[in-house]
Amino acid sequence: MDENTRKQLEKIFHAGLQAVDPESAVKRHVQLTDRQLRVGEKSYSLDDFRRIFVTGVGKGTAPMAKALEDILGDRITEGWIIVKYDHGLPLERIRVLEAAHPVPDNAGLESARFVLQKLAECTENDLVICAFSGGGSALFPSVQPPLNFEEKQKTTKLLLECGATINEINSIRKHMSLGKGGRLAKTAYPATVISLFLSDVVGDPLDVIASGPTVPDTSTFADCVEIMEKFSISQRVPPGVFRFFKEGAEGLLEETPKAGDIVFQHSQNLIVGNNRAALLAAGDQAAKLGYDTRILSSLIEGEAREVAVIMAAIGKEIIESGHPLPAPACILAGGETTVTIRGQGKGGRNQELALAAAIALKGWPRITLLSAGTDGSDGPTDAAGAFADGNTFRDALRMDLNPMQYLLNNDSYNFFDKLGQLFKTGPTRTNVMDVICLLVT
Amino acid sequence: MDENTRKQLEKIFHAGLQAVDPESAVKRHVQLTDRQLRVGEKSYSLDDFRRIFVTGVGKGTAPMAKALEDILGDRITEGWIIVKYDHGLPLERIRVLEAAHPVPDNAGLESARFVLQKLAECTENDLVICAFSGGGSALFPSVQPPLNFEEKQKTTKLLLECGATINEINSIRKHMSLGKGGRLAKTAYPATVISLFLSDVVGDPLDVIASGPTVPDTSTFADCVEIMEKFSISQRVPPGVFRFFKEGAEGLLEETPKAGDIVFQHSQNLIVGNNRAALLAAGDQAAKLGYDTRILSSLIEGEAREVAVIMAAIGKEIIESGHPLPAPACILAGGETTVTIRGQGKGGRNQELALAAAIALKGWPRITLLSAGTDGSDGPTDAAGAFADGNTFRDALRMDLNPMQYLLNNDSYNFFDKLGQLFKTGPTRTNVMDVICLLVT
Repeated sequence: MDENTRKQLEKIFHAGLQAVDPESAVKRHVQLTDRQLRVGEKSYSLDDFRRIFVTGVGKGTAPMAKALEDILGDRITEGWIIVKYDHGLPLERIRVLEAAHPVPDNAGLESARFVLQKLAECTENDLVICAFSGGGSALFPSVQPPLNFEEKQKTTKLLLECGATINEINSIRKHMSLGKGGRLAKTAYPATVISLFLSDVVGDPLDVIASGPTVPDTSTFADCVEIMEKFSISQRVPPGVFRFFKEGAEGLLEETPKAGDIVFQHSQNLIVGNNRAALLAAGDQAAKLGYDTRILSSLIEGEAREVAVIMAAIGKEIIESGHPLPAPACILAGGETTVTIRGQGKGGRNQELALAAAIALKGWPRITLLSAGTDGSDGPTDAAGAFADGNTFRDALRMDLNPMQYLLNNDSYNFFDKLGQLFKTGPTRTNVMDVICLLVT
Repeated sequence: MDENTRKQLEKIFHAGLQAVDPESAVKRHVQLTDRQLRVGEKSYSLDDFRRIFVTGVGKGTAPMAKALEDILGDRITEGWIIVKYDHGLPLERIRVLEAAHPVPDNAGLESARFVLQKLAECTENDLVICAFSGGGSALFPSVQPPLNFEEKQKTTKLLLECGATINEINSIRKHMSLGKGGRLAKTAYPATVISLFLSDVVGDPLDVIASGPTVPDTSTFADCVEIMEKFSISQRVPPGVFRFFKEGAEGLLEETPKAGDIVFQHSQNLIVGNNRAALLAAGDQAAKLGYDTRILSSLIEGEAREVAVIMAAIGKEIIESGHPLPAPACILAGGETTVTIRGQGKGGRNQELALAAAIALKGWPRITLLSAGTDGSDGPTDAAGAFADGNTFRDALRMDLNPMQYLLNNDSYNFFDKLGQLFKTGPTRTNVMDVICLLVT
């Protein structure tokens, strides 16, 4: 593997990463000048507010809160954020609460309750700035009374098993929660609520990132009842749960807040960092290195090995015909692929994608690919991803490694570990899914 | 579905088709001026030859031969082509032999024997112009003595079952044949041999199209023995077959001709039509219609439904960010996808791709896709492919068709038939695999 190309790929990836570092992402979108707080396209006069609170939930929320402290300093009255264990940072005015992820724990339940209690005390003279990032759903567990945590978990488990879509599951979960689906905004009402999102979901759907605590919900109790009946689980969920939803559908319980609801009148939701931002910055770096650069899509989904084959097909076309652009070329793609696990091996979706690319690129030495997770951890491994090029297949055979066997066994980690082609970044504090970079020299 | 967009897609597809019409493809690459025959980059003086023969094999070979008659007229001494039943054309000087495809029949065996006999009579004063297209392998069946047809078939069947790659299978089949793997060129030696290929294989590998009758073989008898041993079928193939290969490996039989062999000294192999040519012409048409146009790749492979998801992701990115190019945009891709059949329905890879696109594009009305086979027949259906757009999903639900169910059942034909979104061209006389066209308006 060419060392120079590999270094260029690392440089391109890190440029992308830098653009979505939670701290700098917030600072790029939030500025304070003369007591005017500029947030994206909007502007707020700090003189309109008596108190400023900061809250937030998600794995990358601590550096986002840090940025807000840097910007607002002692203008922040108080703050409370919930992050994953070991994802905290020493902050001056904002209290960092830690909880378990991805399986919620008691600390999460208590922290969520505490934050909601604090927000409930807000008045129309208060400004609440929220920071949301991936992991926010699990880190903010709560249950609408009279339901209890066990009933909610049982229902979720049934939904997962019955084949409901993630949207359907989310509709039901939001209605069982206290803070999700716009309910955090409702709790803080009549305060002004600004929410900053670091998106870890393909397409940046605000109501999905951290389950949209400040975003209008598009589903109703009636929808939830329909979903349960459609999947024939209305009699299988705990009896209290179905009763709860029936009562909700009959208008006896409070709906999640909807678009146009007064609680959103003074709220702003803004994406401060997403996969596209990472790709754009990575693309700028690639252009600086002399590559004709195109961003293919930040909305890539699908089976990792299939995405690899298409990326390889584009690279080969560049060499053979100069389409879609002439070499030296850089094609960037991002999103989140999936892996259908059939083997017993160790790997992640990025490493699997790179392994499939190594097979598809066999004999095309001018093409090199890096696929890596922006959070620095790909699957249950210590690597962020892996490099593959047109010589990887040959190099593997020389070391008596059969790439096809490793792919069949979903054992991409061990494959690239032996070849010395893993890409390790360590934890990056951010997560905007994955970046795939293809260089044709 | 917007009628205007649909008509534009048809126009773009037909422009691509026209570029790979076998007759015009040959005429674009072969011209006669003042007794100088120009073939691609090379030029031949007809005065150097006493006789000109035309031969060829493949489904699209009749119109290719027709073009050669138009160009050379009565300068053609004689000719013999083998085409699929009902794929002939009335020709003046070239005899059209018909045979069975995809399962070879006796007519194919006799025709192949006849053509080889004729070519064996060639001298250094002869020019042989060959036309090859898809289907050429099955239409030119032959067996190296002392093997017989049954032994060859049994061996092929075993190879298919044991998991050998298509390359490995081809190596063994070429060595058992009389005309494949460069042996047709060897038979015609010392004549000058010009071969024109219409490519129906991803990447245009000359040694694969029609099994490369005039192309150096890269495999040896020794390789074949190794393959048989690797898959433990050396004792399971008919005893005569393994003996044959052992003798070959020991140098007792004549090898297939290799690169550098004298038989290729006066030969030229030229692709006159391929998927890329279709995409380029389709792209020109799209540009004329006002679309910013990019050819993504003519080398697309992989599961049809996965390719659909990526095409959709690119379309959405165009709308959301103007990458990889701004709307109105046209993205063209080509190649040959596969379908893993799990259901009982009716469809083809193009219709399945369109169905998966309809699901992925749900709610994106500005994006429309056509996927279609250039031969006009997609799978075992009378359609070439199908149209899908961001409204197709909604339209289907209104007609009580569940797109997901149809996809699960691989029943894309019935889905699009009911919606009136099948694309039918009838037989096109050509085949350069599939064209996928995505329009973002």
